[in-house]
Amino acid sequence: MFRLKQMAIDTLGEHVVFIHESTVRAGNLGFNPLDRARVVGRDHNGLEREVIGVLNFCRDSIVAADEIGLSDDAFRDFGVAEGAPVDASLSPAPGSVDLVRQKLNGRRLSQADFCEILRDVVARRYSKVELSMFVLACALKTLDREEMVSLTRAMIDTGQSIDFGSGPIADKHCIGGVPGNRTTMIVVPILVALGVKIPKTSSRAITSPAGTADTMALLAEVDLDTDELRRVVSEVGGCIAWGGAVHLAPADDMLITVERPMEIDTEVQMVASILSKKKTAGATHALIDIPVGATTKVRSIGDADRLGELFRVVAGEIGLSLDIVVTEADGPVGRGIGPRLEALDVLAVLQRAPDAPLDLREKSLYLAARLLEMVGGAGSGAGYRRAVEALDSGAAAAAFERIRDAQGRRELPPAAPHCATVAARYDGRIRAIDCLEIARVAKRAGAPAHASSGVRLLRIVGDVVRVGDPLFEVHAQSEGLLRDSCAYAEAHPEITRYGF
Amino acid sequence: MFRLKQMAIDTLGEHVVFIHESTVRAGNLGFNPLDRARVVGRDHNGLEREVIGVLNFCRDSIVAADEIGLSDDAFRDFGVAEGAPVDASLSPAPGSVDLVRQKLNGRRLSQADFCEILRDVVARRYSKVELSMFVLACALKTLDREEMVSLTRAMIDTGQSIDFGSGPIADKHCIGGVPGNRTTMIVVPILVALGVKIPKTSSRAITSPAGTADTMALLAEVDLDTDELRRVVSEVGGCIAWGGAVHLAPADDMLITVERPMEIDTEVQMVASILSKKKTAGATHALIDIPVGATTKVRSIGDADRLGELFRVVAGEIGLSLDIVVTEADGPVGRGIGPRLEALDVLAVLQRAPDAPLDLREKSLYLAARLLEMVGGAGSGAGYRRAVEALDSGAAAAAFERIRDAQGRRELPPAAPHCATVAARYDGRIRAIDCLEIARVAKRAGAPAHASSGVRLLRIVGDVVRVGDPLFEVHAQSEGLLRDSCAYAEAHPEITRYGF
Repeated sequence: MFRLKQMAIDTLGEHVVFIHESTVRAGNLGFNPLDRARVVGRDHNGLEREVIGVLNFCRDSIVAADEIGLSDDAFRDFGVAEGAPVDASLSPAPGSVDLVRQKLNGRRLSQADFCEILRDVVARRYSKVELSMFVLACALKTLDREEMVSLTRAMIDTGQSIDFGSGPIADKHCIGGVPGNRTTMIVVPILVALGVKIPKTSSRAITSPAGTADTMALLAEVDLDTDELRRVVSEVGGCIAWGGAVHLAPADDMLITVERPMEIDTEVQMVASILSKKKTAGATHALIDIPVGATTKVRSIGDADRLGELFRVVAGEIGLSLDIVVTEADGPVGRGIGPRLEALDVLAVLQRAPDAPLDLREKSLYLAARLLEMVGGAGSGAGYRRAVEALDSGAAAAAFERIRDAQGRRELPPAAPHCATVAARYDGRIRAIDCLEIARVAKRAGAPAHASSGVRLLRIVGDVVRVGDPLFEVHAQSEGLLRDSCAYAEAHPEITRYGF
Repeated sequence: MFRLKQMAIDTLGEHVVFIHESTVRAGNLGFNPLDRARVVGRDHNGLEREVIGVLNFCRDSIVAADEIGLSDDAFRDFGVAEGAPVDASLSPAPGSVDLVRQKLNGRRLSQADFCEILRDVVARRYSKVELSMFVLACALKTLDREEMVSLTRAMIDTGQSIDFGSGPIADKHCIGGVPGNRTTMIVVPILVALGVKIPKTSSRAITSPAGTADTMALLAEVDLDTDELRRVVSEVGGCIAWGGAVHLAPADDMLITVERPMEIDTEVQMVASILSKKKTAGATHALIDIPVGATTKVRSIGDADRLGELFRVVAGEIGLSLDIVVTEADGPVGRGIGPRLEALDVLAVLQRAPDAPLDLREKSLYLAARLLEMVGGAGSGAGYRRAVEALDSGAAAAAFERIRDAQGRRELPPAAPHCATVAARYDGRIRAIDCLEIARVAKRAGAPAHASSGVRLLRIVGDVVRVGDPLFEVHAQSEGLLRDSCAYAEAHPEITRYGF
């Protein structure tokens, strides 16, 4: 018997069990580091509880010989009080890992198989190594269409679905890769102003300098749970919230913890992840924006068409009306890159400021128009005019303020304390701005962790510049980061491509 | 600036960096859990040192807000004193991870590519997720022969080679999957008795109930470093040591930490791993035993031939004389399964006890004969007679005692305190004993962590039994484990297959 100890360690979802090495050796417990251990004990109702985690060996300063430590998440999921008596034994891998091995050997998996795997993933029974096996199995052993549908359905089944009642529920998603591009924060208020229900949940930045949730978080509370989400939508007709607190697709949230370090784009995972979240978020109609460009995720129209077709097939099977727009992207959309600078663009467009970025305004209007026509909020071809009316009348801006109030208003933080300008090295017309590289400049300046840091474009694609003209500003939280970020930008003049 | 703290946590080779969560948030450091952090500081000579690890967020009881903690291995590799001022920043993945991604996309890798990857692996710059990517890339994207040779050479280059001087140096290896089967501990003394140099390094059990190193460790010290290994071999002419302390192929040791939980047998990895270790251990001639059976690793003669051919090709390229024997395995070899019970078999064969297991004796003599003929210690066809002479004259037993003394003699531990017998459920002649399942029975009884636990066969393949006859004994460290192990055996009567 051991005493339970909570370890104040956040391992991002991996359950870790800490045992004193001398205990393991003296007791001949047969454990090795990284084995999986099963810890059992009783909760305050006397019910037996168990938690399974990866084993770390420790010495005195971490746990005593008669203690067993659990990382934050494991302790919470275990539900047994600190100091309570617990026991530990070696635990085999969950049986569903055999299914993953079979997939690696090329076998087709059924929907029941995917459900079994994802249930274990959600219960945090998979180690990082096993999560990696599953992600790579799906990436390398091509799933056929039936398997893609099965995977999507399994993600829906292991998630929490929200019901927003009858009538069309609109949703949109951009598959990303374009800095700025905060269309959601303009499309949602336009649709809300026109009476279309759109409970939008967004992600925080994974590898980019800002996600919609990071940007919206500067203007309103975004960590809404399911009840709060439902209240906001019933009060206002829409929301712009962070999806993470709602557990729409917890399996996907776990898979992302290994996908991010892998930096492998798997279309299968992307389609299953996006569509399952739309479905559990209650959407009936969804618009998917696939930007195509030399420096975005999808590089050719052919690839975009193929990806769009995958989205269409799976959406059809799970009963979701879907429309796809393929947009061209030869640079960021809007002027700001980084949460605060992007929020300024959004506010400028909504408030019809004379210097509001036209590209962001036009793309948002176009997407809003398509969605409007999809849900029957405008006749075919009439969507654009209705969207412009909603925006230019101030109705969208008013809807946005209602959303901020309902979610919990916040005020924009001040500008970053340090700023410098990067100048053009050549004469010419700007043909393209490298999306990946300009994002790196913004991240080096501190975005998204520091919300006011990032890049503000002073010249955009199509502008004619001369050597020495200012191209963009870098905003940073410290002089060191400013220097580092500008040095990176100066060392990569090819971020801006010129031509005539 | 932070103060360095050593964390008494053994993470089996993964470098972990512990930072207080409030520090990360307050400092806007832009870290997320599981990001890779680079820690820099100065050693006692004032030289700048760095270490890179995976980030865990902690709270007060683990590290203070002004501390940075490093797991055991990371602290040791860093070489900076506890309490010294250090700094941390976000670190990108090593550049060689891009090569792994390219392999996942089907690109051929060059020898320089493999070297770059394995150098980073050995320096512990790869996270578990990235190690998994590499192992699966090699497993799923078939390596061609040139790549297999490159991978093997890269493993040799990143390891430490031992030179045992001139003359043929013999070595053997069994690819495993057969319980018992402790031929090494008989072949080595036979060869030593006949004047053939054979510095044998073996592994501990990975998934089996005992490895050669686990079994030998009961009779002599096996944790020898390179200098001790060289001394023993120069004194006695051979050794039976654990390979882990010699760092013959440190890259392989790291890859095994993810291969073990994956339980994926990758031929490529196996061939590269085995041959690189033979080469760095100084072998000039090696014999590979490939057991084939319905319940062993290799299931058909065709598979064995294909695998043997891979071994031959790579061995030829790295300048190693190789012979392959394909042996049939319809059950364990010897009577004991588990370190102590296997050691008893070995001692019985060496001491020519009347009840010594004949199958273990004959297989050992056969392997010794093949090796003898390979290195020129016996003319073609004369090896077997010379091996029998060495064994039956007591010369091999004497050589084994010299090896025990040179390595550091240990005495066999007492028998396990609990024992029970499992009986036959059918009449018939035993046709086969399931290697995987009988190994599981031994592991459930406590092997190899508890050295005296395991299984002792009372009847073997070919014996005629009647219902109720005792089939095997289970030896266990506790009554609980004995009960559990016997229950498993009773629930799986198909472990023993009958027929006429």
